[in-house]
Amino acid sequence: MEFEYSPKVKELQAKAMQFLNEEVIPSEARYKQELSEIPMWETPPVIDELKVKARERGLWNLFLPAHREGLTNLEYAPIAEITGRSPWIMPEALNCSAPDTGNMELLHHFATDEVRDRWLPPLLNGEIRSVYGMTEPAVASSDARNISTRIEVDGDEFVINGRKWWSSGAMSPRCKVAIVMGKSDPDGSPHRQQSMVVVPLDTPGITIVRSTSVFGYADGGHGGHAEVIYDNVRVPRNHLLGELHGGFAMSQARLGPGRIHHAMRLIGMAERAYDLMCERALERIAFGKAVAEQGVFQDWIAEARIRIEQVRLLVLKTAWLMDTVGNKEAAVEISAIKVAAPEMATWVIDRAIQAFGGAGVSQDTPLAEMYQQARMLRIADGPDEVHKMSLARRELKRYRKDS
Amino acid sequence: MEFEYSPKVKELQAKAMQFLNEEVIPSEARYKQELSEIPMWETPPVIDELKVKARERGLWNLFLPAHREGLTNLEYAPIAEITGRSPWIMPEALNCSAPDTGNMELLHHFATDEVRDRWLPPLLNGEIRSVYGMTEPAVASSDARNISTRIEVDGDEFVINGRKWWSSGAMSPRCKVAIVMGKSDPDGSPHRQQSMVVVPLDTPGITIVRSTSVFGYADGGHGGHAEVIYDNVRVPRNHLLGELHGGFAMSQARLGPGRIHHAMRLIGMAERAYDLMCERALERIAFGKAVAEQGVFQDWIAEARIRIEQVRLLVLKTAWLMDTVGNKEAAVEISAIKVAAPEMATWVIDRAIQAFGGAGVSQDTPLAEMYQQARMLRIADGPDEVHKMSLARRELKRYRKDS
Amino acid sequence: MEFEYSPKVKELQAKAMQFLNEEVIPSEARYKQELSEIPMWETPPVIDELKVKARERGLWNLFLPAHREGLTNLEYAPIAEITGRSPWIMPEALNCSAPDTGNMELLHHFATDEVRDRWLPPLLNGEIRSVYGMTEPAVASSDARNISTRIEVDGDEFVINGRKWWSSGAMSPRCKVAIVMGKSDPDGSPHRQQSMVVVPLDTPGITIVRSTSVFGYADGGHGGHAEVIYDNVRVPRNHLLGELHGGFAMSQARLGPGRIHHAMRLIGMAERAYDLMCERALERIAFGKAVAEQGVFQDWIAEARIRIEQVRLLVLKTAWLMDTVGNKEAAVEISAIKVAAPEMATWVIDRAIQAFGGAGVSQDTPLAEMYQQARMLRIADGPDEVHKMSLARRELKRYRKDS
Amino acid sequence: MEFEYSPKVKELQAKAMQFLNEEVIPSEARYKQELSEIPMWETPPVIDELKVKARERGLWNLFLPAHREGLTNLEYAPIAEITGRSPWIMPEALNCSAPDTGNMELLHHFATDEVRDRWLPPLLNGEIRSVYGMTEPAVASSDARNISTRIEVDGDEFVINGRKWWSSGAMSPRCKVAIVMGKSDPDGSPHRQQSMVVVPLDTPGITIVRSTSVFGYADGGHGGHAEVIYDNVRVPRNHLLGELHGGFAMSQARLGPGRIHHAMRLIGMAERAYDLMCERALERIAFGKAVAEQGVFQDWIAEARIRIEQVRLLVLKTAWLMDTVGNKEAAVEISAIKVAAPEMATWVIDRAIQAFGGAGVSQDTPLAEMYQQARMLRIADGPDEVHKMSLARRELKRYRKDS
Repeated sequence: MEFEYSPKVKELQAKAMQFLNEEVIPSEARYKQELSEIPMWETPPVIDELKVKARERGLWNLFLPAHREGLTNLEYAPIAEITGRSPWIMPEALNCSAPDTGNMELLHHFATDEVRDRWLPPLLNGEIRSVYGMTEPAVASSDARNISTRIEVDGDEFVINGRKWWSSGAMSPRCKVAIVMGKSDPDGSPHRQQSMVVVPLDTPGITIVRSTSVFGYADGGHGGHAEVIYDNVRVPRNHLLGELHGGFAMSQARLGPGRIHHAMRLIGMAERAYDLMCERALERIAFGKAVAEQGVFQDWIAEARIRIEQVRLLVLKTAWLMDTVGNKEAAVEISAIKVAAPEMATWVIDRAIQAFGGAGVSQDTPLAEMYQQARMLRIADGPDEVHKMSLARRELKRYRKDS
Repeated sequence: MEFEYSPKVKELQAKAMQFLNEEVIPSEARYKQELSEIPMWETPPVIDELKVKARERGLWNLFLPAHREGLTNLEYAPIAEITGRSPWIMPEALNCSAPDTGNMELLHHFATDEVRDRWLPPLLNGEIRSVYGMTEPAVASSDARNISTRIEVDGDEFVINGRKWWSSGAMSPRCKVAIVMGKSDPDGSPHRQQSMVVVPLDTPGITIVRSTSVFGYADGGHGGHAEVIYDNVRVPRNHLLGELHGGFAMSQARLGPGRIHHAMRLIGMAERAYDLMCERALERIAFGKAVAEQGVFQDWIAEARIRIEQVRLLVLKTAWLMDTVGNKEAAVEISAIKVAAPEMATWVIDRAIQAFGGAGVSQDTPLAEMYQQARMLRIADGPDEVHKMSLARRELKRYRKDS
Repeated sequence: MEFEYSPKVKELQAKAMQFLNEEVIPSEARYKQELSEIPMWETPPVIDELKVKARERGLWNLFLPAHREGLTNLEYAPIAEITGRSPWIMPEALNCSAPDTGNMELLHHFATDEVRDRWLPPLLNGEIRSVYGMTEPAVASSDARNISTRIEVDGDEFVINGRKWWSSGAMSPRCKVAIVMGKSDPDGSPHRQQSMVVVPLDTPGITIVRSTSVFGYADGGHGGHAEVIYDNVRVPRNHLLGELHGGFAMSQARLGPGRIHHAMRLIGMAERAYDLMCERALERIAFGKAVAEQGVFQDWIAEARIRIEQVRLLVLKTAWLMDTVGNKEAAVEISAIKVAAPEMATWVIDRAIQAFGGAGVSQDTPLAEMYQQARMLRIADGPDEVHKMSLARRELKRYRKDS
Repeated sequence: MEFEYSPKVKELQAKAMQFLNEEVIPSEARYKQELSEIPMWETPPVIDELKVKARERGLWNLFLPAHREGLTNLEYAPIAEITGRSPWIMPEALNCSAPDTGNMELLHHFATDEVRDRWLPPLLNGEIRSVYGMTEPAVASSDARNISTRIEVDGDEFVINGRKWWSSGAMSPRCKVAIVMGKSDPDGSPHRQQSMVVVPLDTPGITIVRSTSVFGYADGGHGGHAEVIYDNVRVPRNHLLGELHGGFAMSQARLGPGRIHHAMRLIGMAERAYDLMCERALERIAFGKAVAEQGVFQDWIAEARIRIEQVRLLVLKTAWLMDTVGNKEAAVEISAIKVAAPEMATWVIDRAIQAFGGAGVSQDTPLAEMYQQARMLRIADGPDEVHKMSLARRELKRYRKDS
């Protein structure tokens, strides 16, 4: 057992922190400014400049897994954490933002050569963005059996009919392709009913209806969260990912690393909020002394530190488990971090908001916007309750076996 | 001791609920639609129509206190609760929304005849709106001694210099007058340093800089939350409210009823969220049964009901205390509801959001927007921590006396 | 709506507080001393002296309901609260302690004349004590269908076979009679399977096996919590309470007022803990200032006061509902206080323990022993989870009807 | 970074688990039985038998640190965890129980040869036990400056006057020696006022007044928690530990490893409670299905697992820090585990109690007794609040330096 980061990780951490402090944080004001000037759903130009700089510094596509000459989960996790400190800019600047990372993985492993060659290179180059079409408005999508979008074989083509929402990024003009999950065999066993297909967004039959906001945030710079209708959308059969009816397993595989990424970014957000709250408390005077001297505030600081440290260790251990024994053996821990990280981050950010008062809820700090990201992650990819249920069932099995 | 509402209250409740269900809730979609079409900061026309209807139904200016032939706090509280069920529309439709209610009270009691006659009638008629200029960006405003805006006597005039923010409503073209708190005697005893003056918003020297948002919501239909610079703003001496240096006491008096109103509206929001969550849970199927059948959800429902009932009783008792023994004797309870009501409301609304998933955080339900209102009220008019400190000190005094 | 206690209640409160302060609190040390000297399970003599004094002061059998020329639930509740401030002494000194109060009610309403005349007078005189035999060790007794004790008719007798535990008081030599619930018709509908019979404790076939402790406390002065075997125990048929197979309904009716009593006593415990914690904090110096000056402690005080006030109001309202519309209509509120009161009391007492440090967990304060009482009441008469489930189901029905 | 236990640790874990399952758990009933039969404060004979067996298996004095040919903190921690699964038996059976472990360390490092040779060997052999006299009844002992016991030099002797309590173990006839902290220089700088001396318990002037209980538990088998008067107690000058006035630093050094031990034992208790709760839930039927199938219970299981895993990782990391950079650099983490471990353990054990109902609070499970141990550790060695304050201050320093 050894808690020191490896030399390789330390070097990457130093580079990422340098980029964060030298380039990203100083660009945040410009990002906001540009957002208010460009047409809705477009990407602020500063992002493209930062992409170039990140690439020059060797901070590009770091999410790529070890077997593709990238990093292990345990190596990438601390970098993902740093990107979370400026969550609207840095993940995209490093070409490491969701849902593109997961989509690139799916294309790499499961697409036919033609499809992969068409979509993977521009994604790896950060030229286009992509969508993951999973969640549906009419049903509880955390239960995959509820998915109602149909993917039917018709000769050489798949025909897709359905309605998806929370298709994050789809409002952006840069967003060119979707991976869509739907039912290809409604009568199959629960986890063999679904397929995934690659759908170019200019295919006839696709209508982007609107975008949903999160709390009051449109997330315009990242292409919002679109509601998309697929009405007799047709793609060639070679646009299938992996096996027919094998969509559920791929979606699960996709989620493993994604949960590490989300969890670590949440830790980064919590650390940013913590920094801001400590700095503020040292400056701010109330009732005759600095807020930092007040007992209740100190209690928050201590609680926040205790919670952050614990979650970080749990996420790192989970990353290590995924690297060493695989996602399946790490299922309890993956569920655990899915629940623990947003819970911790919402708590820490909420305390920081409280420490800032009016500035905390407003645009003058990144706190309220971070809060909604963290809050959303108690819902996205399955609500807390579903993950706890599944964690508990897995745990209880151990006791069943024994008896 | 008697927990039944009086016949007068029951009749008003019935009328208010009828107006809510017949007119207000059905207007919510139109309100949103109009908001998206009219220029920023203007009031959607539906509000004006509803005002006429409310007035016809005898639901107008109900906040007016008993000594002015209106309602006691205990009688008005249950009506304020109902208005909270549609917090963006119904309080304004009844001419019972903050900060106008408190401002009208100040004008009634403390303005000179000339000033009162100029501003009170159009406010009572709902023709204009008003601002309460208290909070400042640079200091912890919950400690009144921190206020840095200066109100200086210069001959027959007051000269005001300072910067206020969270001046809610000031972005609206309907907003015509401000009540501004500032230091007139910085060397006085802590609670005799401040004065309040009435300032027409077209007075030279006033600059409205910008509006702050709350969790991404601009609150455009209500005139946002403005940051306002007062640069050598001059008003005649008869624009003073009450005594010179008597501003702190007036601000405290103003807050008493305001806290009942806020607390009861929060209960109304919680009840709306509760209704939505129960209805949703009965319809929604996950993992083979309705969400309403799932243990964790039932736990939320029970917790929510237990919390709502307790807070409502505490607020009603506080209203009764204010009516019978006065704000000063009710100080512990007023602090208590200031803390308890937003805490309860954020909890209930957060659970409702979780029950709704993606719809809960988006514009498809009123939940996320209600959440930010409730969350803001853990900060506005003094953060929870300040109220708890003051409550505790008052309580501890009882034990000091005994010994 | 009116929150003032009636003159009658105020007078009783004053008398009860006077008795508490003049007689009960000063007797606590003697009670402990005597407990350590007398044989296990006997009653300390001070209790008998206090009974005489309480009776002289008109504080006797106050639990008796209004229809028996006693008090309404709303009138008795504030007195029950006061008795909770010294929970080991005062309820018994006033002949108002569980399970005797509920048992006396059952005997009054449902016993045959012969049985009532035999057992009710000595109980009303405080000469003997009684047991309520409901909970069983082998099953989840919160689900009445699980009860496995059998009550079978055999000619003119009932034959009882089963094992009960948590038969509080049965170790005491003063305890003379039990009311036992068992299944008389295992094939009946779920709530028509059970009967209740009166069983003198000297009936052959009864074995008192042992006593269970609560967090290390034997509760010796009150006769512990016995495990009792009923092995072919025979009682005459006239020892039936109410109807054959009507036991479940009687058990529910018995619980209503009992929950008010328990809840109010818990509030009394919380108030005692609160007093102790405030007094301590004013005396105790740590890190250069009194604990009472420290922010975290003040936060506890405020939270405690807010929680206590809310629960008290909810219990009083529930008592009022029971008096005016009956137990059935008050079912949601009765469940609510069953959950809310112990939750609040454990929280407040736990904070008081923390404020006292080592003294808080030890015999030097009543806090740890109060904690276990409050903690036990999250389990006794059905665990929190069962009450929340039942509350939620009742609430959800309202939404079912509407749709 | 590497989360696998070393082969050496795995081997020790296997041996410890085997001993736990083969010898310790099966002896628990006998331990209780013997306790009820032997005179109060004596050690049940089964303990001595287990000591012999543990020694034979190489499970003896494992707490000894690496520099003394024992284990590193990181190696010992997982063994301490296992001992916590049977906290009344296993630590003592392995001669690894508090306060002896810390006292042996003090004697080894700081005693003069004569004193060390007299007391260390019988302690290492488990023949006698020892006391650590730190806490005092009259003051908030978490602030070392409050200590009022005096240690004065008088010629060749120290003269000790004062009153200590929570001198755990001192009621046991096996307990032979105390390490006492007192003020030798009341006018020194805050952390240079205290000295520590070794005091044989048969020295004239020592009176053991009584024992305090924790909740209702006397902890008789471990010699209780004594209150001890030192009245002109004289020991030779060579009974000083370390430097004169250097007591505070030694007390801090002593606490570091002690906190790892306590925290890991708490994790062991939590795991035992978790096992019991899972097993119970699979067996127990309520409302038509096993408790294990019920949503609220599953929520507890998931929460418990998430919390346990996080705390364990944090404690292991802290142990690693202490091994690699020393106690001082690990100060934040040491405070963090002092707070986090008992908080987690009380939560998990409390849920297990709830799952067991009446059996949970009684002697039929080890849960209630575990609860009080865990609860006590939120107070012992400084209450949570003091550790959070100190953690926060240390953290805030980082931000002070930066600015």
